[in-house]
Amino acid sequence: MVRQLVRIAVDIMGGDYAPDEIVNGAVLAAQRGSVEIILVGPLSIICTQLSKHQVAQLPISCIGADEFVSEDESPVLALRRKSEATVNVAAKLVKTGEADAMVSMGSTGAVITSALQLLGTLEGIERPIIGGPILGFAPNTVIVDVGANVDCKPHQLLNFALIGCVFARKFLNISDPSVAMLSVGVEPAKGNNLVRKAYQLFLHSGLNFIGNIEGRDIPLGRANVVVCDGFVGNVLVKFCEGLGTTMATWLKASLAPYMPPEEINLVTTNLLSLANWADVFGGGPLLGVDGVVVIGHGSSHALEVAGAINQAKLAVETDFVNALKSELAKFPKISIPLVYSK
Amino acid sequence: MVRQLVRIAVDIMGGDYAPDEIVNGAVLAAQRGSVEIILVGPLSIICTQLSKHQVAQLPISCIGADEFVSEDESPVLALRRKSEATVNVAAKLVKTGEADAMVSMGSTGAVITSALQLLGTLEGIERPIIGGPILGFAPNTVIVDVGANVDCKPHQLLNFALIGCVFARKFLNISDPSVAMLSVGVEPAKGNNLVRKAYQLFLHSGLNFIGNIEGRDIPLGRANVVVCDGFVGNVLVKFCEGLGTTMATWLKASLAPYMPPEEINLVTTNLLSLANWADVFGGGPLLGVDGVVVIGHGSSHALEVAGAINQAKLAVETDFVNALKSELAKFPKISIPLVYSK
Repeated sequence: MVRQLVRIAVDIMGGDYAPDEIVNGAVLAAQRGSVEIILVGPLSIICTQLSKHQVAQLPISCIGADEFVSEDESPVLALRRKSEATVNVAAKLVKTGEADAMVSMGSTGAVITSALQLLGTLEGIERPIIGGPILGFAPNTVIVDVGANVDCKPHQLLNFALIGCVFARKFLNISDPSVAMLSVGVEPAKGNNLVRKAYQLFLHSGLNFIGNIEGRDIPLGRANVVVCDGFVGNVLVKFCEGLGTTMATWLKASLAPYMPPEEINLVTTNLLSLANWADVFGGGPLLGVDGVVVIGHGSSHALEVAGAINQAKLAVETDFVNALKSELAKFPKISIPLVYSK
Repeated sequence: MVRQLVRIAVDIMGGDYAPDEIVNGAVLAAQRGSVEIILVGPLSIICTQLSKHQVAQLPISCIGADEFVSEDESPVLALRRKSEATVNVAAKLVKTGEADAMVSMGSTGAVITSALQLLGTLEGIERPIIGGPILGFAPNTVIVDVGANVDCKPHQLLNFALIGCVFARKFLNISDPSVAMLSVGVEPAKGNNLVRKAYQLFLHSGLNFIGNIEGRDIPLGRANVVVCDGFVGNVLVKFCEGLGTTMATWLKASLAPYMPPEEINLVTTNLLSLANWADVFGGGPLLGVDGVVVIGHGSSHALEVAGAINQAKLAVETDFVNALKSELAKFPKISIPLVYSK
């Protein structure tokens, strides 16, 4: 039986190192095998970039799209003007079935807007989110949301919890994930308005809600699903990244008198991946959208781009979207319409 | 010349390990010298606690206060019912000049409410804040606010920046501190509603505003004053604490094959204090209030309590409040009344 290649549309214009590193990463992914790459971007740029590689034998094709959304534009306004922007063209390929998945390094807002408008969300999901484990020290702790929704309503946090639970069940094999809200104290009276209001919803949600936790509880893995708004989650995940790098540099200097360089490197490399756990995967699927859409980090170089493409391939191969759909249907206790009406 | 002892009112009922560890810490501080301790709490408890120590020669006195605010109470409502709660009695001692400073391990909300109602804020300051350097890796980066104000308005963030600048000038000797807002991207269009609205105020503030930074920029020390709402700041500072502990445990195991235990201990002890920089000082003054009020961590044991008392002593000795007052008066460019009217 000939194994079907997973077809992945790659937005070459998103990310801090676009288009060079995106195309490099896409070529790398194609070389690694089992994916067919559809590069989406201005054809002249694609040609220039591809001319740097030996691509004659690789399953790479191109779709022209001359417009793109930059990091400093309002995604909604920009996409209203640029309906044929790279993210939209890639999303349409997924919608029509010409691609099995799309991958973009951002902007996050543009990818989300595009996915929302062209693919829509799964039943029961109001807004897609980004999440997953962020620390290798707590590999069974999923943080939701880490950047897709920076201003949230209480019922949205409950929605995040629901998706986080499905993520934990499906990808971390945790049968009854514990859920906590991130706050400034464990007491129900502590927290900002958002968290205090959401607390009551969580209490009656039917989820395995263990109450509020504080920042210090995350690295200790005190809950399987930690719910916060995307602003807080995004600050945290990036803070981890920076702190890991800083600590690794410090550790190198601190250990120099005691250990040979190659052993120090082993320790600091481990530390870096434990602190940048999200980076280990190169990117994560946009959770709750009706199609496989992987958003990589804006700062991705070729290796991380290839990693994000691999995440998209895995999501297609594991039939991630349908798994999420059927898991969502198993939550009869949560009265979503009621919650939504608030 | 006989050196005057700094008189510090200590709330013995605040904190996770009250009253035992608070009294132990206060006795320790008195033993260390140059402070006079005024214990505030139920006299029967104070007597029981003091009977465990040799205190006959120490400058320790007591003021009875039978009520106190627990962590799970609403501070405002609780203090309305319990006007003679420990925090209020301690704040009144500062107000009347019977004490030079007060120290409490919390609840944070109760201490702030009490300080606001009884001591008031300095001119130009709407709400007091908590802040300071949180990472030894970035000792010249002050984070404001780290927990006093969990729901903020845009103009409040500007207020935090102002206080943070004074802190950086006065305590870190940075003559023209750079100011950044913590966000999910460096672009002005990125961020939640609060940050996006505040951006315009910051632009025209006359402060050395360098724009938005992301979580990853904090450990790198990219700004001297990092402004965020107290919810985000509190999550961050506690996350640091937890991550430091987790990393130290991991590091101990990772280094065991290479280094003798005592050298490993040296490295992990350093790591712990670098990650828990705020703990090194035992607590920080409530910034912007008209009197020296130090809030320690709720999880403080005797050593940290003694540290917090030492912070209060330093704040009194350096005439912290008046320094802040006069520094605040030097910011003529910031149109506070205009900003406040928004």
